[in-house]
Amino acid sequence: MAVSIDIDAELVERRIMDLARHGACFDTGVWRTVYSPEWVAASDQYAAWCEEAGLKVRRDAVGNVWGRMEGTEPGKSIVSGSHIDSQKPGGRYDGALGALAGLIAIEALFKAFGRPKRTLEALSLCEEEGSRFPSTNFWGSRAIVGKIRQGDAETMKGYEDETMAEAMRSVGLEPARIPTAIRDDIDAFVELHIEQGPILEQAGLPVAVVDAITGMRHYHVTLTGEQNHAGAFPMDLRFDPMAGFAEIAGGVIDTAHRMGRPAVTTVGRVSCDPNYPAIVPRTVRFTVDARHPDPAKRAVLYERHETFMREVAARRGLTISWEILTDHAPCLSDPDLIRTFQAAATEQGVPFMTMSSGAGHDSQEMAAIARMVMLFVRSKDGRSHTPEEFSSIEDIVAGIKVLAAGLHALAY
Amino acid sequence: MAVSIDIDAELVERRIMDLARHGACFDTGVWRTVYSPEWVAASDQYAAWCEEAGLKVRRDAVGNVWGRMEGTEPGKSIVSGSHIDSQKPGGRYDGALGALAGLIAIEALFKAFGRPKRTLEALSLCEEEGSRFPSTNFWGSRAIVGKIRQGDAETMKGYEDETMAEAMRSVGLEPARIPTAIRDDIDAFVELHIEQGPILEQAGLPVAVVDAITGMRHYHVTLTGEQNHAGAFPMDLRFDPMAGFAEIAGGVIDTAHRMGRPAVTTVGRVSCDPNYPAIVPRTVRFTVDARHPDPAKRAVLYERHETFMREVAARRGLTISWEILTDHAPCLSDPDLIRTFQAAATEQGVPFMTMSSGAGHDSQEMAAIARMVMLFVRSKDGRSHTPEEFSSIEDIVAGIKVLAAGLHALAY
Repeated sequence: MAVSIDIDAELVERRIMDLARHGACFDTGVWRTVYSPEWVAASDQYAAWCEEAGLKVRRDAVGNVWGRMEGTEPGKSIVSGSHIDSQKPGGRYDGALGALAGLIAIEALFKAFGRPKRTLEALSLCEEEGSRFPSTNFWGSRAIVGKIRQGDAETMKGYEDETMAEAMRSVGLEPARIPTAIRDDIDAFVELHIEQGPILEQAGLPVAVVDAITGMRHYHVTLTGEQNHAGAFPMDLRFDPMAGFAEIAGGVIDTAHRMGRPAVTTVGRVSCDPNYPAIVPRTVRFTVDARHPDPAKRAVLYERHETFMREVAARRGLTISWEILTDHAPCLSDPDLIRTFQAAATEQGVPFMTMSSGAGHDSQEMAAIARMVMLFVRSKDGRSHTPEEFSSIEDIVAGIKVLAAGLHALAY
Repeated sequence: MAVSIDIDAELVERRIMDLARHGACFDTGVWRTVYSPEWVAASDQYAAWCEEAGLKVRRDAVGNVWGRMEGTEPGKSIVSGSHIDSQKPGGRYDGALGALAGLIAIEALFKAFGRPKRTLEALSLCEEEGSRFPSTNFWGSRAIVGKIRQGDAETMKGYEDETMAEAMRSVGLEPARIPTAIRDDIDAFVELHIEQGPILEQAGLPVAVVDAITGMRHYHVTLTGEQNHAGAFPMDLRFDPMAGFAEIAGGVIDTAHRMGRPAVTTVGRVSCDPNYPAIVPRTVRFTVDARHPDPAKRAVLYERHETFMREVAARRGLTISWEILTDHAPCLSDPDLIRTFQAAATEQGVPFMTMSSGAGHDSQEMAAIARMVMLFVRSKDGRSHTPEEFSSIEDIVAGIKVLAAGLHALAY
């Protein structure tokens, strides 16, 4: 028999809008970088709502806010939340929705069923986007799993040249205390997040259970040929890196396309040197972002890209080199948690699909110390990282229902 | 019977090296923008050599230096020269060689044959490269043919924000006097120039007679799709302008290649917005530089490019637009002058070919008021606009011999 979960749609909407006031911009946008005044206000607001809900609030050394509902039995915690920082600008839902969902679900469960057997915790993670410090996304979850090394906060520079340590101290946090944020008593981490893509919308479904976070790799490629006069140098004697780039960019994009979902490859960045209409360039630099959640297929995708890039460069007499500056292995959701939340969705009558995440999330860091699973809520037009990102309250309530029902199955 | 033309190789080499001292940089480079102190010194040096050679020196309102050898019979002048300004940095030969060649050829003819029937003039043009004022290349020849409009000097801005009028006044030239530089008494303009390409080197020839200056057009293209998350958005739902750009760049380059010499098409400039590895871009902007000296084939080349760009954009659901900011019609050399200089090369025993110029030159401006023809001298590795550009003294002397023999045929 399905438990009856009641999620108050008006409360959900009010909380989303109230939280979005902190850093509000461009009508529907949010500009809330980690350790900014808006971030402090949003974190305080989250902590206040946790207290109202009867949760015990603790803020850790990096400013993650934990709202704890102690279980009646001993054992590791079941945690649900997401990040509270935003892009510049982002929207009202990316991250914030998951932090609120964890809190609202636990609050609803406590109201309906009282104290759980297993300890439940709602979590507002301090930082995920890398929008203030480019090299430090997942700052909040990395602190929890112990991946921040001593001295990192001092050397990490923001876009405006401040260090992470300075930013922390400006809001009363002491970098030397970062190791105290480490947790080793979490059993499961469940993160609800907007999809940020169009797959649910295309499928006509409000919710997905996420079975894996994709593996991704960024190639930073340099392709060099011979700079020449655009008029005086015949085509047949050129070593034109722009022609080579065109073939490579078209080819790697096509390779991912033909491999089929969920393979994706993006060429998002390109520059050319010199950069004049009437000069055959000497060098074209570009990125290749390639992702696949299946470890074996991911290896095939990378291998095809590398072989193709080398082949094009060799055939055209160009020199090619690349650096891999970002390389994340796929992160698989826990099979039992997948089944638990699939069953919860079925029980609650929420139509859903199971899919992988093409974007990175805090859950992939949390997976180092806990079983994890994610839930996605349908995004309008697949958009995110923009003030226009939108998910309907109906879909959000459906997602929080599934979250609460799953947490109920795990904790009661 | 061929006339015997004696060109002093040591004098040629000495003059090239002496002129290259004004603005010398990077061992073999020259940095000599119009109206700079180095340009003033080089112009003074050119004027002094003209006087030594017995030519009557006149500087016009934009600083072109004319060295005139009055003919014994009336009639329009026969003029030979090129520009004395350089790229930043350029080499010792681009432009300067043609200014010196005109002077050395007339000097040699006067020594050997005395005063000509037709008036001969050596010419150092003040500006061609656009290296100080981006929008004003061909400033020297455009002044002569009357293409500079009143007020142009005041509105034209340099890379360092000075106006052309300010730059002129700083060297004692008065912009209001520009119309006095107009000439209507020139019959023929003959410009010797380095090839700036590898065709003569590949053919094993020192010299070419140029039968046309190519037509060229610059498309500044904007290709817009839909910005999306590089991970969360499946390939099959993207409207990716980078994929469209790759197909277009590869296609237009291939089109020119297949059309065969002398068709050339270059994509020399590209930028992308936003420019992040993990974002499918919204917009890619790029240039297409397409050239052909044959008016009919040029029209075919442009038409193929435009049709292809529209077809790719439409098929991929992208929007495309372009501006044409540069559009020069092909400029054909005078058939009689071509024959005259082909015959001169044959008579002097200088192996040569007839070819078109893929680069623009002052001659295409001078063609508005005079018959024109050009001579090319072989470039090492086809290079120019760099301190490494090089032509051997043997090839240069061969070129000046052909120039002098042709001028002899026209003026004696």
